[in-house]
Amino acid sequence: MSSRNDAFAKLSADLGLSFDGEIKVGGNYVAALRHENQVFISGQVPRVGSEVKFTGRVGAELSLAQARQAAQISIMRAIALLQRSLDGDLGHVKQILRMNVYVQSADHFTQQSEVADAASELLYSLFGAAGTHARTSVGVYQLPKNAAVEIDLQAAVE
Amino acid sequence: MSSRNDAFAKLSADLGLSFDGEIKVGGNYVAALRHENQVFISGQVPRVGSEVKFTGRVGAELSLAQARQAAQISIMRAIALLQRSLDGDLGHVKQILRMNVYVQSADHFTQQSEVADAASELLYSLFGAAGTHARTSVGVYQLPKNAAVEIDLQAAVE
Amino acid sequence: MSSRNDAFAKLSADLGLSFDGEIKVGGNYVAALRHENQVFISGQVPRVGSEVKFTGRVGAELSLAQARQAAQISIMRAIALLQRSLDGDLGHVKQILRMNVYVQSADHFTQQSEVADAASELLYSLFGAAGTHARTSVGVYQLPKNAAVEIDLQAAVE
Repeated sequence: MSSRNDAFAKLSADLGLSFDGEIKVGGNYVAALRHENQVFISGQVPRVGSEVKFTGRVGAELSLAQARQAAQISIMRAIALLQRSLDGDLGHVKQILRMNVYVQSADHFTQQSEVADAASELLYSLFGAAGTHARTSVGVYQLPKNAAVEIDLQAAVE
Repeated sequence: MSSRNDAFAKLSADLGLSFDGEIKVGGNYVAALRHENQVFISGQVPRVGSEVKFTGRVGAELSLAQARQAAQISIMRAIALLQRSLDGDLGHVKQILRMNVYVQSADHFTQQSEVADAASELLYSLFGAAGTHARTSVGVYQLPKNAAVEIDLQAAVE
Repeated sequence: MSSRNDAFAKLSADLGLSFDGEIKVGGNYVAALRHENQVFISGQVPRVGSEVKFTGRVGAELSLAQARQAAQISIMRAIALLQRSLDGDLGHVKQILRMNVYVQSADHFTQQSEVADAASELLYSLFGAAGTHARTSVGVYQLPKNAAVEIDLQAAVE
């Protein structure tokens, strides 16, 4: 099922994203935890290298379109972490179980679902039926590093 | 164990709620995901049909009592989805594991637990010991569609 | 593995914390739910006895240092609950799977990760590799009882 790896590589290139060798976290937690047949991905902001690509409040400093781009980067980063936790093979993903999407929102911005849709669409395009998932999207007041979006994942793997 | 189905139908009627044939989401995620012996329910706002019944900030536009009604609709909707994912039989619910309650809160409103209690009480009334659950309730800045409350669930099933 | 119990007792004493006989919740949900080989801990605020030790917005009424103390109390409380759900023996913890950290944040406060680090460090100091975990930290608008921090946990146990 390396076709998923190929699709992910192509999508990364199309979006101009590369996460090679640069996803680090502090030593006291992990970006991706595998336990038995599940992987838990820590909350990911739209960071590439050391730069958070979209900062600010969605609905004020950022548009819906920009927030959707931010969601795409966050979910791509989450998928990159998932891939690493599976010895590089996304073919081992059995089912995406749950995705939580946190949107740093301006007062009166209520399109959090439309932001999350960008990540859901990307999961579906890569994984098909195995990529359909339960999800929760909410608008929060502040995110780490003033990020526009933060996304975490839980997946069943084999 | 169809007695749970009966109790749910009676409670729906008492609350004046009907979710027949109307819970749809976009094609890229699912309202309820069953994987092996667990079901994950996506975040539910207090929507019946196409209408979100309670919108606005709790503690400003909405009272605690109204927020509790909103929580009841959200959890009833979540239970309706759970029922569908179990071929219509709530008797297959082994244990409600976790509930997350997000309350769209006004500044200085700190009774998110009291809002969540309305949903917890309803789960307990329907499922008894199998309905006791771990939960987290927080006050967020904005919810999709300006909903007052959003609730998600994770359940063990057989 | 009672050494973990000893380490937890020592850390409680060092921090001046005691949770003996006082962690109660309403009857319709539970502070800790064990189901098969997992334990789900409900969201914990920095409460000792009946008092929430740190209230207010982090970045305004509270400093980062105070928020980190709040996170330590919340995670200690979560660990105390985990211990009780395991017949008093933290040696049965196989892996901390996920921690969610909610920080009641002032406008422009974006150091939620640094707050969460205090809890992650504590988990690692007590559990070692079994204490590394996936985590999500976000800044929310209001927390129950005006608490500065709320933390929940999911753990694999044996």
